[in-house]
Amino acid sequence: KFDEMFQAVSSGVADAALAPIENSLAGSIHQNYDLMMEHQLTIIGEVYLHIVHNLIAIPGASLEGLRTVYSHPVALAQCARFFKTNTHIEAEAAYDTAGSVKMIMENGNPEHGAIAALAAAEVYGGQVIVEGVQDNNANYTRFLLLAPTATESCVSLLNPGTEYKTSLVFRVANRPGALFKSLASFALRDLDLCKIESRPIEGRPWEYSFYLDLKGNATDPALARALGHLDELAESVRVLGSYPAAQQ
Amino acid sequence: KFDEMFQAVSSGVADAALAPIENSLAGSIHQNYDLMMEHQLTIIGEVYLHIVHNLIAIPGASLEGLRTVYSHPVALAQCARFFKTNTHIEAEAAYDTAGSVKMIMENGNPEHGAIAALAAAEVYGGQVIVEGVQDNNANYTRFLLLAPTATESCVSLLNPGTEYKTSLVFRVANRPGALFKSLASFALRDLDLCKIESRPIEGRPWEYSFYLDLKGNATDPALARALGHLDELAESVRVLGSYPAAQQ
Repeated sequence: KFDEMFQAVSSGVADAALAPIENSLAGSIHQNYDLMMEHQLTIIGEVYLHIVHNLIAIPGASLEGLRTVYSHPVALAQCARFFKTNTHIEAEAAYDTAGSVKMIMENGNPEHGAIAALAAAEVYGGQVIVEGVQDNNANYTRFLLLAPTATESCVSLLNPGTEYKTSLVFRVANRPGALFKSLASFALRDLDLCKIESRPIEGRPWEYSFYLDLKGNATDPALARALGHLDELAESVRVLGSYPAAQQ
Repeated sequence: KFDEMFQAVSSGVADAALAPIENSLAGSIHQNYDLMMEHQLTIIGEVYLHIVHNLIAIPGASLEGLRTVYSHPVALAQCARFFKTNTHIEAEAAYDTAGSVKMIMENGNPEHGAIAALAAAEVYGGQVIVEGVQDNNANYTRFLLLAPTATESCVSLLNPGTEYKTSLVFRVANRPGALFKSLASFALRDLDLCKIESRPIEGRPWEYSFYLDLKGNATDPALARALGHLDELAESVRVLGSYPAAQQ
Protein backbone atom coordinates (compact mmCIF):
# COMPACT_ATOMS: atom_id res chain seq x y z
CA LYS A 1 0.00 0.00 0.00
CA PHE A 2 2.78 2.46 0.89
CA ASP A 3 4.38 1.75 -2.50
CA GLU A 4 1.11 2.76 -4.21
CA MET A 5 1.14 6.00 -2.23
CA PHE A 6 4.70 6.86 -3.31
CA GLN A 7 3.85 5.83 -6.89
CA ALA A 8 0.81 8.14 -6.92
CA VAL A 9 2.98 11.14 -6.05
CA SER A 10 5.83 10.18 -8.42
CA SER A 11 3.41 9.81 -11.33
CA GLY A 12 1.57 13.06 -10.57
CA VAL A 13 -1.76 11.43 -9.61
CA ALA A 14 -1.36 12.95 -6.12
CA ASP A 15 0.32 16.24 -5.15
CA ALA A 16 1.91 14.96 -1.93
CA ALA A 17 1.98 11.97 0.41
CA LEU A 18 2.03 11.84 4.19
CA ALA A 19 4.14 8.76 4.99
CA PRO A 20 4.59 7.33 8.52
CA ILE A 21 8.33 7.06 9.12
CA GLU A 22 8.72 6.19 12.80
CA ASN A 23 6.72 5.21 15.85
CA SER A 24 8.11 6.12 19.25
CA LEU A 25 7.54 2.57 20.55
CA ALA A 26 7.91 0.31 17.51
CA GLY A 27 10.72 2.24 15.81
CA SER A 28 11.31 3.10 12.18
CA ILE A 29 8.97 2.07 9.38
CA HIS A 30 11.70 0.73 7.15
CA GLN A 31 9.56 0.21 4.09
CA ASN A 32 9.10 3.96 3.83
CA TYR A 33 12.83 4.61 4.23
CA ASP A 34 13.38 2.23 1.32
CA LEU A 35 10.63 3.89 -0.74
CA MET A 36 12.23 7.32 -0.19
CA MET A 37 15.39 5.83 -1.72
CA GLU A 38 13.49 4.46 -4.74
CA HIS A 39 11.50 7.63 -5.47
CA GLN A 40 12.89 11.10 -6.18
CA LEU A 41 10.60 12.97 -3.78
CA THR A 42 11.46 15.84 -1.44
CA ILE A 43 10.48 16.02 2.23
CA ILE A 44 8.57 19.28 2.64
CA GLY A 45 7.19 18.82 6.15
CA GLU A 46 6.66 16.56 9.14
CA VAL A 47 3.92 15.99 11.70
CA TYR A 48 3.58 13.96 14.90
CA LEU A 49 0.36 12.13 15.79
CA HIS A 50 -0.54 10.80 19.22
CA ILE A 51 -1.63 7.17 18.72
CA VAL A 52 -4.57 5.86 20.76
CA HIS A 53 -5.67 2.25 20.21
CA ASN A 54 -9.34 1.48 20.83
CA LEU A 55 -11.13 -1.85 20.98
CA ILE A 56 -13.91 -1.66 18.39
CA ALA A 57 -16.72 -4.11 17.55
CA ILE A 58 -20.17 -4.12 15.94
CA PRO A 59 -22.93 -2.22 17.81
CA GLY A 60 -24.39 -4.45 20.53
CA ALA A 61 -21.19 -6.51 21.00
CA SER A 62 -19.68 -6.77 24.49
CA LEU A 63 -16.14 -7.21 25.86
CA GLU A 64 -17.18 -10.54 27.44
CA GLY A 65 -18.57 -11.86 24.16
CA LEU A 66 -15.45 -11.17 22.08
CA ARG A 67 -13.28 -14.13 21.07
CA THR A 68 -10.99 -12.79 18.31
CA VAL A 69 -9.56 -9.29 17.89
CA TYR A 70 -7.89 -8.27 14.61
CA SER A 71 -5.34 -5.53 13.98
CA HIS A 72 -1.94 -4.76 12.53
CA PRO A 73 0.74 -6.81 14.36
CA VAL A 74 2.42 -3.66 15.72
CA ALA A 75 -0.87 -2.40 17.18
CA LEU A 76 -1.54 -5.83 18.73
CA ALA A 77 1.95 -5.85 20.28
CA GLN A 78 1.31 -2.39 21.76
CA CYS A 79 -1.78 -3.78 23.53
CA ALA A 80 -0.05 -6.84 25.06
CA ARG A 81 -1.33 -6.10 28.57
CA PHE A 82 -4.95 -6.02 27.38
CA PHE A 83 -4.59 -9.49 25.83
CA LYS A 84 -2.85 -10.82 28.95
CA THR A 85 -5.73 -9.73 31.20
CA ASN A 86 -8.47 -10.75 28.72
CA THR A 87 -7.49 -14.37 28.19
CA HIS A 88 -10.81 -15.21 26.50
CA ILE A 89 -9.74 -13.07 23.52
CA GLU A 90 -7.25 -14.14 20.88
CA ALA A 91 -5.18 -11.57 18.96
CA GLU A 92 -5.18 -12.15 15.19
CA ALA A 93 -2.83 -10.33 12.79
CA ALA A 94 -4.36 -8.37 9.89
CA TYR A 95 -2.98 -6.03 7.23
CA ASP A 96 -3.88 -2.76 8.92
CA THR A 97 -5.81 -1.23 11.79
CA ALA A 98 -8.63 0.59 9.94
CA GLY A 99 -9.02 -2.32 7.49
CA SER A 100 -9.66 -4.63 10.46
CA VAL A 101 -12.60 -2.45 11.51
CA LYS A 102 -13.95 -2.52 7.95
CA MET A 103 -13.66 -6.32 7.93
CA ILE A 104 -15.42 -6.96 11.25
CA MET A 105 -18.21 -4.54 10.30
CA GLU A 106 -18.77 -6.41 7.02
CA ASN A 107 -18.75 -9.81 8.75
CA GLY A 108 -21.10 -8.64 11.52
CA ASN A 109 -19.95 -11.29 14.01
CA PRO A 110 -20.29 -10.04 17.64
CA GLU A 111 -17.41 -12.36 18.66
CA HIS A 112 -14.98 -10.38 16.45
CA GLY A 113 -13.31 -7.09 17.36
CA ALA A 114 -10.60 -4.84 15.98
CA ILE A 115 -8.03 -2.46 17.42
CA ALA A 116 -7.83 0.89 15.64
CA ALA A 117 -8.13 4.67 15.96
CA LEU A 118 -11.40 6.35 16.86
CA ALA A 119 -11.74 7.66 13.30
CA ALA A 120 -11.97 4.08 11.96
CA ALA A 121 -14.94 3.36 14.25
CA GLU A 122 -16.64 6.54 13.04
CA VAL A 123 -16.03 5.85 9.33
CA TYR A 124 -17.26 2.24 9.40
CA GLY A 125 -19.96 2.62 12.07
CA GLY A 126 -18.21 0.50 14.69
CA GLN A 127 -18.76 0.79 18.43
CA VAL A 128 -15.85 1.59 20.79
CA ILE A 129 -15.92 -1.17 23.45
CA VAL A 130 -12.82 -0.02 25.37
CA GLU A 131 -10.99 3.26 24.80
CA GLY A 132 -7.17 3.43 24.96
CA VAL A 133 -6.22 -0.25 25.30
CA GLN A 134 -2.50 0.43 24.60
CA ASP A 135 0.13 -0.45 27.24
CA ASN A 136 2.04 2.81 26.97
CA ASN A 137 0.52 6.22 26.47
CA ALA A 138 3.75 7.80 25.12
CA ASN A 139 2.91 6.49 21.67
CA TYR A 140 3.55 8.90 18.79
CA THR A 141 4.03 8.40 15.08
CA ARG A 142 6.09 10.79 12.99
CA PHE A 143 4.91 11.37 9.41
CA LEU A 144 6.84 12.98 6.58
CA LEU A 145 5.11 15.05 3.90
CA LEU A 146 6.64 14.18 0.53
CA ALA A 147 6.21 15.97 -2.79
CA PRO A 148 7.95 15.92 -6.20
CA THR A 149 9.66 19.29 -5.63
CA ALA A 150 10.13 21.63 -2.72
CA THR A 151 6.77 23.36 -2.47
CA GLU A 152 5.23 24.94 0.57
CA SER A 153 1.63 24.56 -0.58
CA CYS A 154 0.53 21.94 1.96
CA VAL A 155 3.04 22.62 4.74
CA SER A 156 0.92 25.27 6.44
CA LEU A 157 -1.68 22.56 7.19
CA LEU A 158 0.84 20.89 9.49
CA ASN A 159 1.14 23.75 12.01
CA PRO A 160 4.89 24.09 11.43
CA GLY A 161 7.31 25.77 13.83
CA THR A 162 10.03 28.21 12.85
CA GLU A 163 12.94 25.78 13.34
CA TYR A 164 14.06 23.62 10.42
CA LYS A 165 15.13 20.00 10.05
CA THR A 166 17.14 18.42 7.24
CA SER A 167 17.00 14.74 6.27
CA LEU A 168 19.65 13.03 4.15
CA VAL A 169 20.91 9.60 3.18
CA PHE A 170 24.53 8.62 2.52
CA ARG A 171 26.74 5.60 1.90
CA VAL A 172 30.33 5.14 3.00
CA ALA A 173 32.96 2.58 1.97
CA ASN A 174 33.10 -0.44 4.28
CA ARG A 175 36.28 0.68 6.10
CA PRO A 176 37.11 1.07 9.82
CA GLY A 177 36.10 4.52 11.06
CA ALA A 178 34.15 5.43 7.92
CA LEU A 179 30.88 6.19 9.75
CA PHE A 180 32.75 8.04 12.51
CA LYS A 181 34.49 10.31 9.99
CA SER A 182 31.17 11.02 8.25
CA LEU A 183 29.52 12.03 11.52
CA ALA A 184 32.50 14.32 12.20
CA SER A 185 31.18 16.57 9.40
CA PHE A 186 28.31 17.45 11.72
CA ALA A 187 29.76 16.95 15.21
CA LEU A 188 32.78 19.20 14.57
CA ARG A 189 30.30 21.99 13.72
CA ASP A 190 28.10 21.29 16.79
CA LEU A 191 25.18 20.38 14.52
CA ASP A 192 22.49 18.41 16.33
CA LEU A 193 21.77 14.88 15.04
CA CYS A 194 18.15 13.91 15.88
CA LYS A 195 18.16 10.42 14.38
CA ILE A 196 20.37 7.91 12.63
CA GLU A 197 18.98 4.87 10.86
CA SER A 198 20.82 2.21 8.87
CA ARG A 199 19.23 0.24 6.03
CA PRO A 200 20.79 -2.65 4.11
CA ILE A 201 21.95 -2.03 0.53
CA GLU A 202 20.35 -4.54 -1.86
CA GLY A 203 22.90 -6.83 -3.48
CA ARG A 204 25.67 -5.78 -1.06
CA PRO A 205 25.01 -7.95 2.02
CA TRP A 206 26.00 -6.35 5.37
CA GLU A 207 26.64 -2.92 3.81
CA TYR A 208 24.36 -0.04 4.75
CA SER A 209 22.89 3.30 3.77
CA PHE A 210 22.64 5.74 6.68
CA TYR A 211 19.71 8.11 7.06
CA LEU A 212 20.23 11.20 9.22
CA ASP A 213 17.88 13.83 10.58
CA LEU A 214 19.63 17.03 11.67
CA LYS A 215 18.45 20.31 13.12
CA GLY A 216 18.82 23.17 10.65
CA ASN A 217 18.23 24.07 7.02
CA ALA A 218 20.58 22.81 4.28
CA THR A 219 21.04 26.46 3.27
CA ASP A 220 22.36 27.44 6.76
CA PRO A 221 26.09 28.22 6.31
CA ALA A 222 27.34 25.65 8.88
CA LEU A 223 25.06 22.86 7.62
CA ALA A 224 25.93 23.69 3.97
CA ARG A 225 29.64 23.39 4.82
CA ALA A 226 29.00 20.15 6.71
CA LEU A 227 27.23 18.69 3.67
CA GLY A 228 30.21 19.68 1.50
CA HIS A 229 32.51 17.97 4.00
CA LEU A 230 30.34 14.82 3.96
CA ASP A 231 30.49 14.81 0.14
CA GLU A 232 34.30 14.48 0.39
CA LEU A 233 34.05 11.52 2.80
CA ALA A 234 31.06 9.54 1.53
CA GLU A 235 30.50 7.42 -1.57
CA SER A 236 27.20 9.19 -2.15
CA VAL A 237 25.04 11.78 -0.40
CA ARG A 238 21.44 12.72 -1.15
CA VAL A 239 19.61 15.49 0.72
CA LEU A 240 16.00 14.34 1.10
CA GLY A 241 14.74 17.76 2.14
CA SER A 242 14.82 20.70 4.56
CA TYR A 243 11.47 21.41 6.18
CA PRO A 244 9.88 23.19 9.15
CA ALA A 245 10.19 21.00 12.25
CA ALA A 246 6.79 20.11 13.70
CA GLN A 247 5.74 21.40 17.09
CA GLN A 248 5.27 18.29 19.21
CA LYS B 1 6.94 -16.75 19.27
CA PHE B 2 10.42 -15.22 19.59
CA ASP B 3 9.50 -14.08 23.11
CA GLU B 4 8.67 -17.70 24.02
CA MET B 5 12.08 -18.76 22.69
CA PHE B 6 13.92 -16.18 24.84
CA GLN B 7 11.72 -17.10 27.81
CA ALA B 8 12.58 -20.79 27.42
CA VAL B 9 16.31 -20.04 27.69
CA SER B 10 15.93 -17.51 30.53
CA SER B 11 13.89 -19.99 32.58
CA GLY B 12 16.26 -22.90 31.93
CA VAL B 13 13.80 -24.97 29.85
CA ALA B 14 16.22 -24.68 26.89
CA ASP B 15 20.02 -24.46 26.98
CA ALA B 16 20.38 -21.95 24.16
CA ALA B 17 18.38 -20.16 21.44
CA LEU B 18 19.29 -19.41 17.84
CA ALA B 19 17.60 -16.07 17.12
CA PRO B 20 17.46 -14.44 13.66
CA ILE B 21 18.81 -10.92 14.05
CA GLU B 22 19.20 -9.56 10.52
CA ASN B 23 18.36 -10.38 6.93
CA SER B 24 20.63 -8.96 4.23
CA LEU B 25 17.62 -7.67 2.24
CA ALA B 26 14.96 -6.88 4.85
CA GLY B 27 17.28 -5.55 7.54
CA SER B 28 17.31 -6.03 11.29
CA ILE B 29 14.74 -8.12 13.13
CA HIS B 30 14.01 -5.52 15.77
CA GLN B 31 11.89 -7.70 17.99
CA ASN B 32 14.96 -9.79 18.76
CA TYR B 33 17.09 -6.72 19.48
CA ASP B 34 14.42 -5.70 21.99
CA LEU B 35 14.27 -9.21 23.49
CA MET B 36 18.07 -9.20 23.98
CA MET B 37 17.56 -6.03 26.01
CA GLU B 38 14.82 -7.62 28.15
CA HIS B 39 16.66 -10.89 28.84
CA GLN B 40 20.07 -11.30 30.47
CA LEU B 41 21.48 -13.73 27.91
CA THR B 42 24.97 -13.82 26.40
CA ILE B 43 25.72 -14.13 22.69
CA ILE B 44 27.99 -17.17 22.35
CA GLY B 45 27.99 -17.59 18.56
CA GLU B 46 26.59 -16.56 15.20
CA VAL B 47 25.71 -18.29 11.95
CA TYR B 48 24.64 -17.14 8.46
CA LEU B 49 22.02 -19.04 6.44
CA HIS B 50 21.39 -18.63 2.73
CA ILE B 51 17.65 -18.08 2.29
CA VAL B 52 15.89 -19.74 -0.67
CA HIS B 53 12.15 -19.20 -1.06
CA ASN B 54 10.20 -21.99 -2.78
CA LEU B 55 6.61 -22.06 -3.98
CA ILE B 56 5.01 -25.05 -2.25
CA ALA B 57 1.52 -26.59 -2.63
CA ILE B 58 -0.26 -29.91 -2.04
CA PRO B 59 0.85 -32.84 -4.24
CA GLY B 60 -0.95 -32.65 -7.59
CA ALA B 61 -1.39 -28.87 -7.52
CA SER B 62 -0.08 -26.80 -10.45
CA LEU B 63 1.24 -23.26 -10.87
CA GLU B 64 -1.67 -22.45 -13.23
CA GLY B 65 -4.26 -23.66 -10.71
CA LEU B 66 -2.98 -21.58 -7.78
CA ARG B 67 -5.01 -18.52 -6.73
CA THR B 68 -3.67 -17.58 -3.27
CA VAL B 69 -0.16 -17.94 -1.89
CA TYR B 70 0.51 -17.49 1.84
CA SER B 71 3.74 -16.57 3.60
CA HIS B 72 5.35 -14.16 6.03
CA PRO B 73 5.07 -10.56 4.67
CA VAL B 74 8.87 -10.26 4.39
CA ALA B 75 9.10 -13.46 2.31
CA LEU B 76 6.23 -12.25 0.08
CA ALA B 77 7.99 -8.91 -0.42
CA GLN B 78 11.18 -10.73 -1.43
CA CYS B 79 9.24 -12.53 -4.19
CA ALA B 80 7.62 -9.39 -5.67
CA ARG B 81 8.73 -10.23 -9.22
CA PHE B 82 7.07 -13.67 -9.05
CA PHE B 83 3.74 -12.09 -8.08
CA LYS B 84 4.08 -9.42 -10.79
CA THR B 85 4.52 -12.05 -13.52
CA ASN B 86 1.88 -14.44 -12.10
CA THR B 87 -1.07 -12.08 -11.92
CA HIS B 88 -3.55 -14.94 -11.38
CA ILE B 89 -2.04 -15.45 -7.90
CA GLU B 90 -2.73 -13.24 -4.90
CA ALA B 91 -0.17 -12.89 -2.09
CA GLU B 92 -1.70 -13.28 1.39
CA ALA B 93 0.17 -12.45 4.60
CA ALA B 94 0.51 -15.16 7.27
CA TYR B 95 2.39 -15.41 10.58
CA ASP B 96 5.38 -17.37 9.28
CA THR B 97 6.73 -19.26 6.27
CA ALA B 98 6.76 -22.86 7.57
CA GLY B 99 3.40 -22.33 9.30
CA SER B 100 1.90 -21.37 5.93
CA VAL B 101 2.97 -24.74 4.49
CA LYS B 102 1.43 -26.53 7.49
CA MET B 103 -1.82 -24.60 6.95
CA ILE B 104 -2.17 -25.28 3.21
CA MET B 105 -1.38 -28.99 3.77
CA GLU B 106 -4.11 -29.20 6.41
CA ASN B 107 -6.65 -27.41 4.20
CA GLY B 108 -5.78 -29.49 1.13
CA ASN B 109 -7.00 -26.87 -1.36
CA PRO B 110 -5.07 -27.11 -4.69
CA GLU B 111 -5.69 -23.36 -5.26
CA HIS B 112 -3.61 -22.49 -2.19
CA GLY B 113 0.18 -22.33 -2.05
CA ALA B 114 2.84 -21.17 0.41
CA ILE B 115 6.33 -19.69 0.14
CA ALA B 116 8.87 -21.29 2.45
CA ALA B 117 12.17 -23.17 2.72
CA LEU B 118 12.63 -26.64 1.23
CA ALA B 119 12.69 -28.13 4.76
CA ALA B 120 9.08 -26.99 5.35
CA ALA B 121 7.91 -28.89 2.24
CA GLU B 122 9.74 -32.00 3.48
CA VAL B 123 8.38 -31.79 7.04
CA TYR B 124 4.73 -31.27 6.03
CA GLY B 125 4.73 -33.37 2.83
CA GLY B 126 4.25 -30.44 0.45
CA GLN B 127 5.30 -30.39 -3.20
CA VAL B 128 7.76 -27.78 -4.49
CA ILE B 129 6.01 -26.17 -7.50
CA VAL B 130 8.74 -23.60 -8.29
CA GLU B 131 12.20 -23.52 -6.69
CA GLY B 132 13.87 -20.21 -5.79
CA VAL B 133 11.09 -17.69 -6.47
CA GLN B 134 12.96 -14.85 -4.66
CA ASP B 135 13.90 -11.69 -6.60
CA ASN B 136 17.45 -11.48 -5.27
CA ASN B 137 19.72 -14.45 -4.65
CA ALA B 138 22.01 -12.52 -2.24
CA ASN B 139 19.60 -13.28 0.60
CA TYR B 140 21.20 -14.28 3.90
CA THR B 141 19.95 -14.28 7.46
CA ARG B 142 22.29 -13.86 10.40
CA PHE B 143 21.39 -15.78 13.58
CA LEU B 144 22.80 -15.27 17.08
CA LEU B 145 23.25 -18.17 19.49
CA LEU B 146 22.16 -17.00 22.95
CA ALA B 147 22.70 -18.74 26.30
CA PRO B 148 22.39 -17.76 29.99
CA THR B 149 26.18 -17.65 30.50
CA ALA B 150 29.21 -17.73 28.24
CA THR B 151 29.52 -21.41 27.41
CA GLU B 152 31.16 -22.91 24.37
CA SER B 153 29.13 -26.13 24.45
CA CYS B 154 27.08 -25.54 21.29
CA VAL B 155 29.38 -23.13 19.45
CA SER B 156 31.37 -25.87 17.72
CA LEU B 157 28.18 -26.83 15.84
CA LEU B 158 28.29 -23.48 14.06
CA ASN B 159 31.61 -24.03 12.24
CA PRO B 160 33.20 -20.98 13.86
CA GLY B 161 36.23 -19.16 12.51
CA THR B 162 39.18 -18.01 14.59
CA GLU B 163 38.27 -14.30 14.51
CA TYR B 164 36.01 -12.88 17.19
CA LYS B 165 33.13 -10.42 17.22
CA THR B 166 31.75 -8.43 20.16
CA SER B 167 28.18 -7.10 20.41
CA LEU B 168 27.12 -4.39 22.84
CA VAL B 169 24.31 -1.94 23.51
CA PHE B 170 24.67 1.58 24.93
CA ARG B 171 22.68 4.73 25.60
CA VAL B 172 23.95 8.30 25.46
CA ALA B 173 22.45 11.56 26.70
CA ASN B 174 20.44 13.39 24.03
CA ARG B 175 23.16 16.03 23.36
CA PRO B 176 24.80 17.24 20.12
CA GLY B 177 27.80 15.06 19.27
CA ALA B 178 27.02 12.37 21.88
CA LEU B 179 26.91 9.47 19.39
CA PHE B 180 30.01 10.79 17.59
CA LYS B 181 32.00 10.90 20.84
CA SER B 182 30.89 7.35 21.72
CA LEU B 183 32.02 6.02 18.35
CA ALA B 184 35.38 7.78 18.90
CA SER B 185 36.11 5.14 21.58
CA PHE B 186 36.40 2.60 18.77
CA ALA B 187 37.45 4.72 15.76
CA LEU B 188 40.44 6.29 17.57
CA ARG B 189 41.73 2.74 18.19
CA ASP B 190 41.09 1.62 14.58
CA LEU B 191 38.55 -0.95 15.79
CA ASP B 192 36.26 -2.14 13.01
CA LEU B 193 32.53 -1.46 13.41
CA CYS B 194 30.48 -4.07 11.48
CA LYS B 195 27.00 -2.81 12.31
CA ILE B 196 25.16 -0.05 14.14
CA GLU B 197 21.47 -0.26 14.90
CA SER B 198 19.28 2.18 16.82
CA ARG B 199 16.18 1.16 18.75
CA PRO B 200 13.70 3.46 20.50
CA ILE B 201 13.74 3.60 24.31
CA GLU B 202 10.25 2.89 25.69
CA GLY B 203 8.78 5.86 27.53
CA ARG B 204 11.44 8.26 26.17
CA PRO B 205 10.10 9.16 22.70
CA TRP B 206 12.80 9.92 20.08
CA GLU B 207 15.65 8.69 22.31
CA TYR B 208 17.57 5.57 21.30
CA SER B 209 19.69 2.66 22.41
CA PHE B 210 22.53 1.88 19.99
CA TYR B 211 23.59 -1.68 19.24
CA LEU B 212 27.10 -2.19 17.87
CA ASP B 213 28.89 -5.20 16.41
CA LEU B 214 32.68 -4.87 16.41
CA LYS B 215 35.50 -7.09 15.27
CA GLY B 216 37.52 -8.45 18.20
CA ASN B 217 37.10 -9.98 21.65
CA ALA B 218 36.14 -7.82 24.65
CA THR B 219 39.28 -9.17 26.36
CA ASP B 220 41.60 -7.86 23.58
CA PRO B 221 43.60 -4.99 25.15
CA ALA B 222 42.50 -2.32 22.61
CA LEU B 223 38.83 -3.32 22.73
CA ALA B 224 38.91 -3.54 26.54
CA ARG B 225 40.31 0.01 26.69
CA ALA B 226 37.69 1.20 24.16
CA LEU B 227 34.91 -0.26 26.33
CA GLY B 228 36.36 1.55 29.36
CA HIS B 229 36.41 4.77 27.32
CA LEU B 230 32.78 4.23 26.23
CA ASP B 231 31.80 3.71 29.89
CA GLU B 232 33.04 7.25 30.61
CA LEU B 233 30.98 8.75 27.77
CA ALA B 234 27.73 6.76 27.80
CA GLU B 235 24.80 6.66 30.23
CA SER B 236 24.94 2.86 30.19
CA VAL B 237 26.86 0.13 28.39
CA ARG B 238 26.11 -3.59 28.28
CA VAL B 239 28.35 -6.08 26.49
CA LEU B 240 26.05 -8.70 24.98
CA GLY B 241 28.87 -11.15 24.23
CA SER B 242 32.15 -11.94 22.47
CA TYR B 243 31.92 -14.93 20.15
CA PRO B 244 33.68 -16.58 17.22
CA ALA B 245 32.71 -14.83 13.97
CA ALA B 246 31.00 -17.19 11.52
CA GLN B 247 32.67 -18.09 8.26
CA GLN B 248 30.29 -16.79 5.57
